Amino acid sequence: MRRKKKKNKPVKVKNTSVNQVPGQVIYVGSKENTSTSLEIIDYNKEKHEVKHTNNINEVFQYRDSEDITWVNVNGLNATEEIEQLGKFYGLHPLILEDIVNTQQRPKIDEYDTYIFMVLKMMYYAEDGELIKEHMSIVLGEKYVLTFQEADGDVFDGVRDRIKNAKGRIRNSGPDYLTYTFIDAIIDNYFIIIETMGDKIEELEDSLFLDDPEETITQDIQDLKKEIIRIRRAIYPLREVINRLEKGEHPLIQEKTNHYLRDLYDHIIQVSENIEIYREMTWGLMDMYMTTISNKMNEVMKVLTIMASIFIPLTFMAGIYGMNFEYIPELQLKYGYFYLWAAMLIVFFGLLWYFKRKKWL
Amino acid sequence: MRRKKKKNKPVKVKNTSVNQVPGQVIYVGSKENTSTSLEIIDYNKEKHEVKHTNNINEVFQYRDSEDITWVNVNGLNATEEIEQLGKFYGLHPLILEDIVNTQQRPKIDEYDTYIFMVLKMMYYAEDGELIKEHMSIVLGEKYVLTFQEADGDVFDGVRDRIKNAKGRIRNSGPDYLTYTFIDAIIDNYFIIIETMGDKIEELEDSLFLDDPEETITQDIQDLKKEIIRIRRAIYPLREVINRLEKGEHPLIQEKTNHYLRDLYDHIIQVSENIEIYREMTWGLMDMYMTTISNKMNEVMKVLTIMASIFIPLTFMAGIYGMNFEYIPELQLKYGYFYLWAAMLIVFFGLLWYFKRKKWL
Amino acid sequence: MRRKKKKNKPVKVKNTSVNQVPGQVIYVGSKENTSTSLEIIDYNKEKHEVKHTNNINEVFQYRDSEDITWVNVNGLNATEEIEQLGKFYGLHPLILEDIVNTQQRPKIDEYDTYIFMVLKMMYYAEDGELIKEHMSIVLGEKYVLTFQEADGDVFDGVRDRIKNAKGRIRNSGPDYLTYTFIDAIIDNYFIIIETMGDKIEELEDSLFLDDPEETITQDIQDLKKEIIRIRRAIYPLREVINRLEKGEHPLIQEKTNHYLRDLYDHIIQVSENIEIYREMTWGLMDMYMTTISNKMNEVMKVLTIMASIFIPLTFMAGIYGMNFEYIPELQLKYGYFYLWAAMLIVFFGLLWYFKRKKWL
Amino acid sequence: MRRKKKKNKPVKVKNTSVNQVPGQVIYVGSKENTSTSLEIIDYNKEKHEVKHTNNINEVFQYRDSEDITWVNVNGLNATEEIEQLGKFYGLHPLILEDIVNTQQRPKIDEYDTYIFMVLKMMYYAEDGELIKEHMSIVLGEKYVLTFQEADGDVFDGVRDRIKNAKGRIRNSGPDYLTYTFIDAIIDNYFIIIETMGDKIEELEDSLFLDDPEETITQDIQDLKKEIIRIRRAIYPLREVINRLEKGEHPLIQEKTNHYLRDLYDHIIQVSENIEIYREMTWGLMDMYMTTISNKMNEVMKVLTIMASIFIPLTFMAGIYGMNFEYIPELQLKYGYFYLWAAMLIVFFGLLWYFKRKKWL
Amino acid sequence: MRRKKKKNKPVKVKNTSVNQVPGQVIYVGSKENTSTSLEIIDYNKEKHEVKHTNNINEVFQYRDSEDITWVNVNGLNATEEIEQLGKFYGLHPLILEDIVNTQQRPKIDEYDTYIFMVLKMMYYAEDGELIKEHMSIVLGEKYVLTFQEADGDVFDGVRDRIKNAKGRIRNSGPDYLTYTFIDAIIDNYFIIIETMGDKIEELEDSLFLDDPEETITQDIQDLKKEIIRIRRAIYPLREVINRLEKGEHPLIQEKTNHYLRDLYDHIIQVSENIEIYREMTWGLMDMYMTTISNKMNEVMKVLTIMASIFIPLTFMAGIYGMNFEYIPELQLKYGYFYLWAAMLIVFFGLLWYFKRKKWL
Repeated sequence: MRRKKKKNKPVKVKNTSVNQVPGQVIYVGSKENTSTSLEIIDYNKEKHEVKHTNNINEVFQYRDSEDITWVNVNGLNATEEIEQLGKFYGLHPLILEDIVNTQQRPKIDEYDTYIFMVLKMMYYAEDGELIKEHMSIVLGEKYVLTFQEADGDVFDGVRDRIKNAKGRIRNSGPDYLTYTFIDAIIDNYFIIIETMGDKIEELEDSLFLDDPEETITQDIQDLKKEIIRIRRAIYPLREVINRLEKGEHPLIQEKTNHYLRDLYDHIIQVSENIEIYREMTWGLMDMYMTTISNKMNEVMKVLTIMASIFIPLTFMAGIYGMNFEYIPELQLKYGYFYLWAAMLIVFFGLLWYFKRKKWL
Repeated sequence: MRRKKKKNKPVKVKNTSVNQVPGQVIYVGSKENTSTSLEIIDYNKEKHEVKHTNNINEVFQYRDSEDITWVNVNGLNATEEIEQLGKFYGLHPLILEDIVNTQQRPKIDEYDTYIFMVLKMMYYAEDGELIKEHMSIVLGEKYVLTFQEADGDVFDGVRDRIKNAKGRIRNSGPDYLTYTFIDAIIDNYFIIIETMGDKIEELEDSLFLDDPEETITQDIQDLKKEIIRIRRAIYPLREVINRLEKGEHPLIQEKTNHYLRDLYDHIIQVSENIEIYREMTWGLMDMYMTTISNKMNEVMKVLTIMASIFIPLTFMAGIYGMNFEYIPELQLKYGYFYLWAAMLIVFFGLLWYFKRKKWL
Repeated sequence: MRRKKKKNKPVKVKNTSVNQVPGQVIYVGSKENTSTSLEIIDYNKEKHEVKHTNNINEVFQYRDSEDITWVNVNGLNATEEIEQLGKFYGLHPLILEDIVNTQQRPKIDEYDTYIFMVLKMMYYAEDGELIKEHMSIVLGEKYVLTFQEADGDVFDGVRDRIKNAKGRIRNSGPDYLTYTFIDAIIDNYFIIIETMGDKIEELEDSLFLDDPEETITQDIQDLKKEIIRIRRAIYPLREVINRLEKGEHPLIQEKTNHYLRDLYDHIIQVSENIEIYREMTWGLMDMYMTTISNKMNEVMKVLTIMASIFIPLTFMAGIYGMNFEYIPELQLKYGYFYLWAAMLIVFFGLLWYFKRKKWL
Repeated sequence: MRRKKKKNKPVKVKNTSVNQVPGQVIYVGSKENTSTSLEIIDYNKEKHEVKHTNNINEVFQYRDSEDITWVNVNGLNATEEIEQLGKFYGLHPLILEDIVNTQQRPKIDEYDTYIFMVLKMMYYAEDGELIKEHMSIVLGEKYVLTFQEADGDVFDGVRDRIKNAKGRIRNSGPDYLTYTFIDAIIDNYFIIIETMGDKIEELEDSLFLDDPEETITQDIQDLKKEIIRIRRAIYPLREVINRLEKGEHPLIQEKTNHYLRDLYDHIIQVSENIEIYREMTWGLMDMYMTTISNKMNEVMKVLTIMASIFIPLTFMAGIYGMNFEYIPELQLKYGYFYLWAAMLIVFFGLLWYFKRKKWL
Repeated sequence: MRRKKKKNKPVKVKNTSVNQVPGQVIYVGSKENTSTSLEIIDYNKEKHEVKHTNNINEVFQYRDSEDITWVNVNGLNATEEIEQLGKFYGLHPLILEDIVNTQQRPKIDEYDTYIFMVLKMMYYAEDGELIKEHMSIVLGEKYVLTFQEADGDVFDGVRDRIKNAKGRIRNSGPDYLTYTFIDAIIDNYFIIIETMGDKIEELEDSLFLDDPEETITQDIQDLKKEIIRIRRAIYPLREVINRLEKGEHPLIQEKTNHYLRDLYDHIIQVSENIEIYREMTWGLMDMYMTTISNKMNEVMKVLTIMASIFIPLTFMAGIYGMNFEYIPELQLKYGYFYLWAAMLIVFFGLLWYFKRKKWL
């Protein structure tokens, strides 16, 4: 796990809307070049119709349809067309601002005739980067509008169920459709949770390698930031779902309530896991500290053993390297060998000492 | 306590239900091969009857019985039969999903004619592994359904009391039966708490060994994870029991309330212990750090003493090993012995110095 | 403060009541051999009577007395007689279970005709061990029952006041008597708090000794456990007193309320102190870490100074110990003395350097 | 990032109002010499008028104007004139005290005919210092008063919109004007958040430099203090906006509520970011600790390798520097070369050993 | 900042009232020898009168005065006279106990005809010690009683204002007088906060000295204790003021409410600062740890550089000190100089290496 410099930027906020007039629709995301496209799915119990277009006007004919209409807007650059759409459905200007403000945290705003929600779609890109996409849902009486930053979402399962009339979806209202959207997004959080668990396990294992990357501190810090980013997306969502579940808005039918409660259960489960990972990641730093200290201990032991054994021996050799006129031992015939014997005794004595101390 | 690599997997979530239609009954546990068996216990004040079978249809005859019927389902693979049972007792599809979803956290769902609960049965297997089993209880007017992942549970005491008409059980309703189930599960938590206490004590002692396992950091981290897993099972259970105890559901008789309050007391006691163990386990890491540092201190002292004593002595010997033409001391008759005297003075002087510093 | 191995066992729970029938009266404490004895104090404004007996039947004659009767049961082994007493006063079976279950945490249960309380009496034994005794109080209309694990309690002051008609006690009801019991128990907590403060001070001082015991980490950990044990006894007591003070039960007279509020104040003060000690004990570990590190620093400085001074000098001596045929310095008449001069310059230069660095 | 000594003073409180009579208007800020100037902006749907003056009396003529009047007071020294203004608008003496007390934390006080708010304007000065300016707003029926410590504020956008009749501002009441003030202040917080993020990133990078400044600990501590100062300004503001948003005061029109809710959303977002930065800054200290330890490890390894290799070699050389009469190896013709061979074996053997240990 | 041993005792509780009869008035403070004196200030709009006396009976004549009477009791030893005063004003015995119990934490007790408050007056004595004085206030319909441990208080400003009829004091009731007392006490807390800030700054600076006092750990711990002591005085005071501010007691007039709210604002500001200082003090310990580690790093670098340079050189010299019969280099004419050249290369090579590693 090489350190990819700057892979995870600190959790920054770029608020280019400073000094702007409130209610102004200015896209502040980073995906400036993606074009905006529309996907319209109109269905009832008997039939369903799918239309892909770039022309905002095609939406307008579905207004008076008795069917349920799902309008999915990909790309948030065409702020002008989003404003047009907003006026068409009678949305409050602040909502339009939130739709294109990718910095907006998840929230729910209940209006008389519609409910507005902001959510965050998250997934890991192929290069391991955590992608966080801003997404808004407007739930009306006969329609659901979804706004996404880019093509490619997690709603293919929903499209499939509408197409094949699988499950309850074709027999239920737009509130159930909205539920399936949130359900799909939360299901994806579980995948993120799983990947995160693997990452932590990987980091934990790498702590016990003989030669851990020096970037491990950075990796742990990066992981902390990732957890922080995920928490920021998930925690406000609990409130959103809780508010929906209370079912006080007439747009939420009573029979959808059990499904929403189930959703709430899931989001609680996701947040619990995030908390656990958070605790474990913080614990990793402590583990790393003890690992470093243990290694230092080992290094010091090697030094101490080598120095403690050979410094006295060198001293002994130094004694008989002196040039005094009269050093009696030097004249002994086997003096040299006697000295070796003494040295070996010192050598093994110290070895035994260190062995007893369990340093060897 | 050898490190059993990967003994404790990080607390992962495998949610294979991603993109599935809500309300679909898919078993996501790991015990794929266990077969599903049924145990039916039907009793009233006078008599009781026990039946073991694999045939779901045998349950149906007990529906209209005036007695209390306990149907215990072992093994959650036979999702089809569980669906059948669910339809027979009129259970909501989301409940069936939760029964077989072993990842579901403990919860309570109150419906008009029945109460649904998810709990976690926990025990230590013989190899020391913590086993956590998913279990669901449905409490109806004249019946209690229990769903377990595998054979072998903690309800033998309950069976015994029904059989021998011990205690109040035969004279009470299905709410009291449900209480005895939860009571048996919580009683088992106390055993877990006790084992955990032993583990912590063991780890604590091993910190002060001369040669602690290097895996001690990992062992502490494993213990943390175990505590986290147990907390995840126990904490939501408090809510479950609290909701039951409030006794607002007509299925809970008033005289059962004192027992439920007692249960709540027990679960609080278990969670308090878990919190204490958690704090102590976190403290272990700090203790380990000081232990390492103390050891390093000792290593450094040995090095410092050896080097500080013998390096100056070696220097002294080196002086008289020089080949200058005129070194007056070398001509002294007893120069060699004078030097030894000086060396011994230095030697004992340093020894005294280190003694005074309490390094020896 | 020598480490008394295993002095403080980890805060364990031994729940021998696993798989027992709910409501069964089984003593789970450790004082199996103490006999059970009764003390009956019957008093009114004018007179008071004290009786010590082992015979449960003697209690029964006081039932219809118009006086206030305090029955104190010492020793919880005679479960059969406690059951008898329970039946006599009409106590719920779960209460009897709690009376003998020494693991039960402090709690209050309000019944129609009596209030049941569990408390913990705590004191330091002579060998410094913290003794925690289980005690239950039943407050009825004309009687108070107290159940204790062993002889010897903190109620001598209360007995004295009844005997000598000191204070309001003889003129007040059983609720005031109950208040004096709790007051006596909490007064004892203050002594514990004081002893604890001394222990912390002692540990803190021992951190700065030249040669601290190696067991200091263990001592700190033991102290943490002691604090945890005390918290477990004190925290639930706050709820107990709070519930009493709310005075919604008819057995609590209004004029007793000011006294109970005062009690609540005291228990809050005790818990605040416990929290402060807790924080300070946790801080001790950090202090110990810096102490160790400071010591290591000192050791390293000695090594560095000795090695840095003598290694270069040894090198200089080594130079002139070489046997090259032509080393001009060796032929100098005063070469040896010139070298000594050079060595002294190096020696004092390094000394000066270390002095400037404040290492000496 | 050189340490600018004393750049960030500890978060001090200078309360020069000690022992003063309550309600006395005494300026306690540090900008003693700035003169006080007035700016009056009077507007309605059709027209707007701007007047700059130092004469407090000019304000009085706008009292009975049907237009909305914004009176902006720059500089809080002229306490006498502020008192005059206060009397003119009927403000409570305690409010006047708060207007000039720059230590006052953000708060809201609702009176019958006006709402009083204290806020903190924050920006980074050009030398990188965080400037925190005290500012008060009084919202009346037809007027808004703003009080600032110095010239130069963040309201140019608002002035511009009034002048050019951009957005809703000219068509809305003084409550909307107040909203735009708070909005402008919070927008500025986002810039602070961004700068803060850059600082943390910079510090984080500097941790991994080979030679980090020794002042890094101080820099981290300074950052902590900055975060603390910002939190103190922002946290109470949440309450302020929350109280405004509840819209119970008749001065807040219902159509302004959506804007206030949006504001609340923004301030929550700012506080969340502050919390995240706080956590990350605290984490920096841990990272720094591991960095230091890692460096120490590296230093120790170099020492250990050098000493462990050359100390044994020096010993070997020392052996054959001895002057024993009979050392057989010395007579060997190629003895010198044999020794070199042995030394090389030792040398490479140790190198291989350290390589295997991954210390090289 | 020399360590004054035992300057700050651990936050102890000495409860000499153990086993005493509830409601007994026993002074438990440490100022046993101070005599008790009375100060009576009687005032109305037109006049005011001051009397100093030791005779409790002089108070009694002011009972039926229509003016506001402030009775200030200095010294709490004369428990008998305090009891007399208590009876005279009809105070509950428990209140008298609290008046003389200097361990009592700040609290408020509302009775029908009076309000009883306990507060803590705090200031730094000249020797830098933090003095904490117990003080009680009884607010009645036409009187205010204050009880203090010793002479010398923070109410001179109040006396002055009564005397000179400054501010609203002579025109307001006893509730406003009580407000000015609490205001004076809280104003003093701001001075404590400021001193505390200076202490922290001083400690922070001393961390970066070359030779910090070894007592710095102790100083930090002492500071922690001081903060803990201050918190214990301030936190309960928030409740006290909050309860007063709610203004439900008839003794608190409505026009005093704005002043009390202002007080609450101040006490919140004080507690916020305490929290900040607490966090910063805890951070100091971490800073100290990194400082120690940095110093150790520096020590190690010196050792490593000295040893790594001279050990190899000594080895080279050792080689040519050997006495082998045939060492070709020794016969070279300029061998000695060639060796010096080699040594210089090694010397500068290693210097360059350490330079590149930024260790020099």
